Amino acid sequence: PEMAVILAAGLGTRMGGKPKGLVKVAGREILYRTMAILQRVGVKRFVLVTNDRYAPLYREFIEKYGFPAEVIINPEPEKGNGHSLHLAKGRVSGKFVLVMSDHVYSGVFLEKAIRGDGLIADRRPGWVDVGEATKVKVKNGRVEKIGKGLKEWDAVDTGFFVLDEGIFEVTEELERERNGDYSLSEVVERATLPVTFVDGLGWTDVDTPEDIKQARKMLVKTAVKGTGDGFVSRHLNRKISTEISALLVDKVTPNQMTAFTFALGIFSALLTLVSLPLAGILYQLSSILDGVDGEIARAQLRTSRLGGYIDSILDRYVDGTFLALLAYSTLSEPLWYLIALFALLGAVMVSYSTERFKGAFCRDAYAEVPSLRKLPGKRDERVFLTMLFLLYPIPVSIKALFAILAILTNLRVALTLYFVSRKVS
Amino acid sequence: PEMAVILAAGLGTRMGGKPKGLVKVAGREILYRTMAILQRVGVKRFVLVTNDRYAPLYREFIEKYGFPAEVIINPEPEKGNGHSLHLAKGRVSGKFVLVMSDHVYSGVFLEKAIRGDGLIADRRPGWVDVGEATKVKVKNGRVEKIGKGLKEWDAVDTGFFVLDEGIFEVTEELERERNGDYSLSEVVERATLPVTFVDGLGWTDVDTPEDIKQARKMLVKTAVKGTGDGFVSRHLNRKISTEISALLVDKVTPNQMTAFTFALGIFSALLTLVSLPLAGILYQLSSILDGVDGEIARAQLRTSRLGGYIDSILDRYVDGTFLALLAYSTLSEPLWYLIALFALLGAVMVSYSTERFKGAFCRDAYAEVPSLRKLPGKRDERVFLTMLFLLYPIPVSIKALFAILAILTNLRVALTLYFVSRKVS
Ligand SMILES: [Mg+2]
Ligand SMILES: [Mg+2]
Repeated sequence: PEMAVILAAGLGTRMGGKPKGLVKVAGREILYRTMAILQRVGVKRFVLVTNDRYAPLYREFIEKYGFPAEVIINPEPEKGNGHSLHLAKGRVSGKFVLVMSDHVYSGVFLEKAIRGDGLIADRRPGWVDVGEATKVKVKNGRVEKIGKGLKEWDAVDTGFFVLDEGIFEVTEELERERNGDYSLSEVVERATLPVTFVDGLGWTDVDTPEDIKQARKMLVKTAVKGTGDGFVSRHLNRKISTEISALLVDKVTPNQMTAFTFALGIFSALLTLVSLPLAGILYQLSSILDGVDGEIARAQLRTSRLGGYIDSILDRYVDGTFLALLAYSTLSEPLWYLIALFALLGAVMVSYSTERFKGAFCRDAYAEVPSLRKLPGKRDERVFLTMLFLLYPIPVSIKALFAILAILTNLRVALTLYFVSRKVS
Repeated sequence: PEMAVILAAGLGTRMGGKPKGLVKVAGREILYRTMAILQRVGVKRFVLVTNDRYAPLYREFIEKYGFPAEVIINPEPEKGNGHSLHLAKGRVSGKFVLVMSDHVYSGVFLEKAIRGDGLIADRRPGWVDVGEATKVKVKNGRVEKIGKGLKEWDAVDTGFFVLDEGIFEVTEELERERNGDYSLSEVVERATLPVTFVDGLGWTDVDTPEDIKQARKMLVKTAVKGTGDGFVSRHLNRKISTEISALLVDKVTPNQMTAFTFALGIFSALLTLVSLPLAGILYQLSSILDGVDGEIARAQLRTSRLGGYIDSILDRYVDGTFLALLAYSTLSEPLWYLIALFALLGAVMVSYSTERFKGAFCRDAYAEVPSLRKLPGKRDERVFLTMLFLLYPIPVSIKALFAILAILTNLRVALTLYFVSRKVS
């Protein structure tokens, strides 16, 4: 579908009189997110149906971001929202998307939903209050019944539809029968729309300020990149970092977060001169926070190549400085310094060997060579290990740490070279 | 031009009876190189004019590599080569390339020449024996006279032409007048072809075994990549490495050379335990040889992303191992080890910050951010500096070396971040 109809005529009553589509979640208007992602996946033109009162605000919004959108006014917004859809008749052709202005969708949801047909329904809605949601009973792949109060149901209505002009024959009928006052659900039920299931990918509707919190968290959690995450990241760091990101996503920029995490990392390295356990704990904390800049950036639709580039270089400096100062404050014999030098070399080379792959092949190493994912020795694992060894620091354990790091990292690079060579040739 | 006519009917007398187009230079048949590069720059079909005796050999060659080529036989190869061109009449349409089978062209020459018109001539031919070459006198941008014995001339005929079907009206005339015995030069002169100058980019013809040496050297020298070369590389290392590459290009593969250079580098690092001056000299030698694998690969048309990837990682290990063992064999105080750790970190990070740029932007950092080229601290410069400091090793000079390296490299990374940020945003 190259067109999308957005229903935005409803008068938001619990959101302080602001049109719900213009409420910001994770630093972006709900509609900005929906429209920007739909554009990315192929939608070329939008038709936005709103009411008299909101029209100027939506026009301003559309102009500000230059969206290719036409605004249509529903003069009777108090009537059922089926009529709003009907007003788009003649403005769209072929297949088109119908979407609600007060629903927040994750990128992955929209990418999948747009390839569906009819009503897009979710059998595992993780982020909505099912009691309040519109439920659907499906029969032979089509809508049998739809409504909030259904006792028996199969899935939840996501507020996202892929329709064609045929739908206007149904609205035409209802216009005559009900004098223009009928809901979208009535249209859907009468049309016995096909149902496409898009399960558990992340979307929610926003009715109350409390819902915004939920939507924010959904956006952060569904925006985790994950490729390249090690064991500790998957099972510990990401769980904490996404909570932190959800708290901060409306308050800080990705760059601010990168700067703060870098400063904390360098501070933890300096702490090795004072208290090793404390240094280790702060180092691990900075490793947790290391995910936050990326999570915030993706949730805010503000990822940048430059941001990723700078972040990646600063991470190497945190690791290098930590190992260098840890060696300085704990080692004395040249042999152990030699091992520390190789531990530092290995730490940087683990990233180098992965990132250089992208430089050579313009592809992500973990995507191209999946065997690399299983290799231990990623940053999150090394930092966690370092923290563990520093909790009760005795000279022999620190030496063991350096030895383990030196072997683990350089072995990992050797295996990376092996796997890449095997895959590419 | 999407077609190319190749003249290969001449009976090579000084090359042991082998068709000259099939003589290997830098590990590839002369014609393989010409045809492969022409394909890369847009030629879709070839017409190869040869004689009875060579036809089976050329057919085998074409099949082996799957070139889209048609073989035409000139039954009277002893007559002038103008007739060979005439035989291509009706087989080509629109603009087409005409090229000699016994000329070796650099990639840069072919890329530029194919965008020219008429006779491609070189006012600064660096690799041919001008006494033996066919000279051109130009008037108003067109050929006035052409021949080996011209007293006054402007440029040398490169054996490369961009023509159209109009040329066959001239050959038709000459066929009648000369009974089929006339040279290409006569065609060119009578047609008063336009002249395009492509100066000094590297091409040569091969008549004698001695010429092959010259061609080999030309290919190596014109294949130097150069972006990312530091001061020492430009003024010293490349001059030596290209000589070595010219000697080895027919004898070793790029991978063999990468392995040898890596082994030599690691050996030089181990030598720090025995003799610092010797270690430094071998380190610098390995730095010179570091260019050879790439030069050979490019001259042989055998560059590979995997090769570049592996080479780049091995280089980092040579540097890391050298610095680690140098520190181990010369330092004792923790403070100086701390500085050595930062010198090692910086050495790897100089490359990391450049290569990670490619990973992020899929573009070459030096091409996108030219200011980076001026920054000192590239590998060739660091290795050379290290060698200088190790020639008369005293403790204070080695400490100074580590301090300089630590500051130089990390400062360079900071400036790289600065230049990249400024350029990208
Ligand atoms: Mg980070
Ligand atoms: Mg190399």
